[in-house]
Amino acid sequence: MIRLSRRKFMQASAAASLVAANGIPITLDAAEERKVNAPANAFDYQHAVVPLPFDAKSLKGLSDRLIQSHWENNYGGAVKALNTLRSRLKQTLGDANTPPYVYNGLKREQLIRTGSVVLHELYFANLGGDGKAPAELRTKIAVAFGTFDAWETEFRKIGQGLGGGSGWVVLGFNTRLTLLENYWMADHSTHPADTRPVLVMDMYEHAYQMDYGAAAPKYIDAFFANIQWDAVAKRL
Amino acid sequence: MIRLSRRKFMQASAAASLVAANGIPITLDAAEERKVNAPANAFDYQHAVVPLPFDAKSLKGLSDRLIQSHWENNYGGAVKALNTLRSRLKQTLGDANTPPYVYNGLKREQLIRTGSVVLHELYFANLGGDGKAPAELRTKIAVAFGTFDAWETEFRKIGQGLGGGSGWVVLGFNTRLTLLENYWMADHSTHPADTRPVLVMDMYEHAYQMDYGAAAPKYIDAFFANIQWDAVAKRL
Amino acid sequence: MIRLSRRKFMQASAAASLVAANGIPITLDAAEERKVNAPANAFDYQHAVVPLPFDAKSLKGLSDRLIQSHWENNYGGAVKALNTLRSRLKQTLGDANTPPYVYNGLKREQLIRTGSVVLHELYFANLGGDGKAPAELRTKIAVAFGTFDAWETEFRKIGQGLGGGSGWVVLGFNTRLTLLENYWMADHSTHPADTRPVLVMDMYEHAYQMDYGAAAPKYIDAFFANIQWDAVAKRL
Amino acid sequence: MIRLSRRKFMQASAAASLVAANGIPITLDAAEERKVNAPANAFDYQHAVVPLPFDAKSLKGLSDRLIQSHWENNYGGAVKALNTLRSRLKQTLGDANTPPYVYNGLKREQLIRTGSVVLHELYFANLGGDGKAPAELRTKIAVAFGTFDAWETEFRKIGQGLGGGSGWVVLGFNTRLTLLENYWMADHSTHPADTRPVLVMDMYEHAYQMDYGAAAPKYIDAFFANIQWDAVAKRL
Repeated sequence: MIRLSRRKFMQASAAASLVAANGIPITLDAAEERKVNAPANAFDYQHAVVPLPFDAKSLKGLSDRLIQSHWENNYGGAVKALNTLRSRLKQTLGDANTPPYVYNGLKREQLIRTGSVVLHELYFANLGGDGKAPAELRTKIAVAFGTFDAWETEFRKIGQGLGGGSGWVVLGFNTRLTLLENYWMADHSTHPADTRPVLVMDMYEHAYQMDYGAAAPKYIDAFFANIQWDAVAKRL
Repeated sequence: MIRLSRRKFMQASAAASLVAANGIPITLDAAEERKVNAPANAFDYQHAVVPLPFDAKSLKGLSDRLIQSHWENNYGGAVKALNTLRSRLKQTLGDANTPPYVYNGLKREQLIRTGSVVLHELYFANLGGDGKAPAELRTKIAVAFGTFDAWETEFRKIGQGLGGGSGWVVLGFNTRLTLLENYWMADHSTHPADTRPVLVMDMYEHAYQMDYGAAAPKYIDAFFANIQWDAVAKRL
Repeated sequence: MIRLSRRKFMQASAAASLVAANGIPITLDAAEERKVNAPANAFDYQHAVVPLPFDAKSLKGLSDRLIQSHWENNYGGAVKALNTLRSRLKQTLGDANTPPYVYNGLKREQLIRTGSVVLHELYFANLGGDGKAPAELRTKIAVAFGTFDAWETEFRKIGQGLGGGSGWVVLGFNTRLTLLENYWMADHSTHPADTRPVLVMDMYEHAYQMDYGAAAPKYIDAFFANIQWDAVAKRL
Repeated sequence: MIRLSRRKFMQASAAASLVAANGIPITLDAAEERKVNAPANAFDYQHAVVPLPFDAKSLKGLSDRLIQSHWENNYGGAVKALNTLRSRLKQTLGDANTPPYVYNGLKREQLIRTGSVVLHELYFANLGGDGKAPAELRTKIAVAFGTFDAWETEFRKIGQGLGGGSGWVVLGFNTRLTLLENYWMADHSTHPADTRPVLVMDMYEHAYQMDYGAAAPKYIDAFFANIQWDAVAKRL
């Protein structure tokens, strides 16, 4: 687990180069919006872990142990893997002996880890709230789906259908179709093209098995009870 | 957010009423940027085919027959399927007898067709040029990848590795990581999360088999010779 | 070929009529080898749940609660879904209004559930033992992989790489290549072509999260300690 | 292209070690059934290309050029890649610096190429006939699907739904469910678990684009007209 002493916390404010015990670089910028990280090129960039934007003990119906493990192992592990992969890609690109289909094995892993990092950051950032959608946002969603209930019914149904495997449910704004829609996603590398995620729900079993076993619908209830709608509203 | 001027709205009503011979609704707006189509909710929206933004006979090394078939059958077919799927989703959502995993079968098809529609529109819009990247854009890409050659080498290598199957290569700007990167994509439903596509190359075999058989690298050469870099630059 | 003695046929009729409390039809035949179920055509066949071939409390390092939930919810749920899907396929096949890609949405679900049912039955049947491979089998595996250790190293490594998502590791005999090999499988619908599974390890998170959280390697240790090698030997 | 002189043909009869100009080891054993290839362990095995079991010019509605390219580039390329991958797996397994998820990138490619090799060999071996199913086989299929027409309707429908992308349709005997069924498969790495393929139809676009463009249904007609049913009957 990544634990930061008060001193390290303060150092971190000044330096993005802090490295946690398990070798994951860490920042203390828990804000929803990613800043800079640049300038970095596509092969040298190393991603820094974003801390949980809420107290892991504060959620209703989702245990501290579950949330900590999810953040540290699944999200943190993805950051570490993504950083490792980038070094390997740089080494391998210039190697004429590596067939393109072997290179693509690394690119596929990079895509999966990129999805995992990005979606997990969005997921944690849209948790930690009271689950009550502000009226203005409810109206926007109602316009986009006929009614707010139609939206919620579909979002939950997609989640239920993903129980027992991996996947994500995303409410996203498709920039090209100029449509706000719910999307089914099979894993970290699935995603609608050219779309800005607005609300994301992790349906991998690591998001609920520890607390709810196979009862995915109960997890979906808990997820809804903890939505941080203000963060969602800012993405729209 | 979706904002439509009154004028655009009225134009849209007219454009959307055209229907092409093969039953696909069609607009005359061949421009790169999607306008209108709104207001529509997620279940009622019907997408209109975007015409080819260039003369199909004008490409170097990619035949009129190939381009026409690609646009009409693969892209046009995806538009038609996507429109059909939306009606089915609307019918099915309210049906309590449909298990969520059956509903998700439709959502998965919707995701695939959405990817196909969006990526094909971006693909055709980044073809029809002279293949010469303007200096300013070359510099931006060089900064993001070390050198322009490093970018091109990786982009081509990913494409070569996809030969013989389905897939896309995308140069995209990952909004969350604030990184410009090349991505390997296995099919229409694969995509990096929260990413704006900048240059997209179709590697499905329907993009080249008619002209080049299994010789994917020759197709990649032809693709590069026809890149419309001005359209690419506007996306960055 | 399907050959049923008169006696087996009658037994089957009786067994298939039992229905467990959760609505899943159940047989009492817990044996490794599937008998009966036939004669049935591809659209009418209804699969009967195979009971756990060992006492759920008897495994070392895998809890009763985990095993029961895995068997009842993940395996049992797949049986139920597969039976539902077959009725839907029969209804839908004759419906000329259903586009082939919508029909394939059901076929895809059928494939996933078929894999889940078959692999879970093989998985439970190769658990419940003492984890000690008999000398003769060790020799066979050693011949096929250079050494027994090389086999185990690869089998475990594939499992470790699947931690945090879905997937299976399979030692299988590829009938066409006449090779005994380890295979990585991404989900229930992935599988080497024309291959007989010999030892299967479930790497979906539902196989370990409840007991081990994200610590997939500890689960792999527990799996190895409980392998029923006699069942494995019979499949070779 | 792989062309064998009469002399090489004769040498080949005696030696499986023949190597074609493009570096692919080749045998002349065009027979449906794979013989030995053993003894070889999982890491050292090198697969030899199986020649077309019919004259490429002899098919109805499928051109010599298409069939040659399909056999040489898609099937032959898969054999070559599979042989390369096995050497890489052997090198990489012992390398402690390679994370399991990177190793699995190679295992995934191996699975894809294994599927491609096996399914292509079965595909070519079930072509070259007159398309007329013998009465006994028609009866078996009719029993398994209600009617022979129900089987053919479903088999064709799955194929139509796969048009425009990658995939296979397989009539297979599921050993565990003791059921003869049609299966949808998304790519070379998809396959029903524990199933013996009986009739396989390649739906990758390289199987038809050259001759039929996007008209997948016309290709399916041509496929049916050339089925070698005797080979199919032997697999049942």
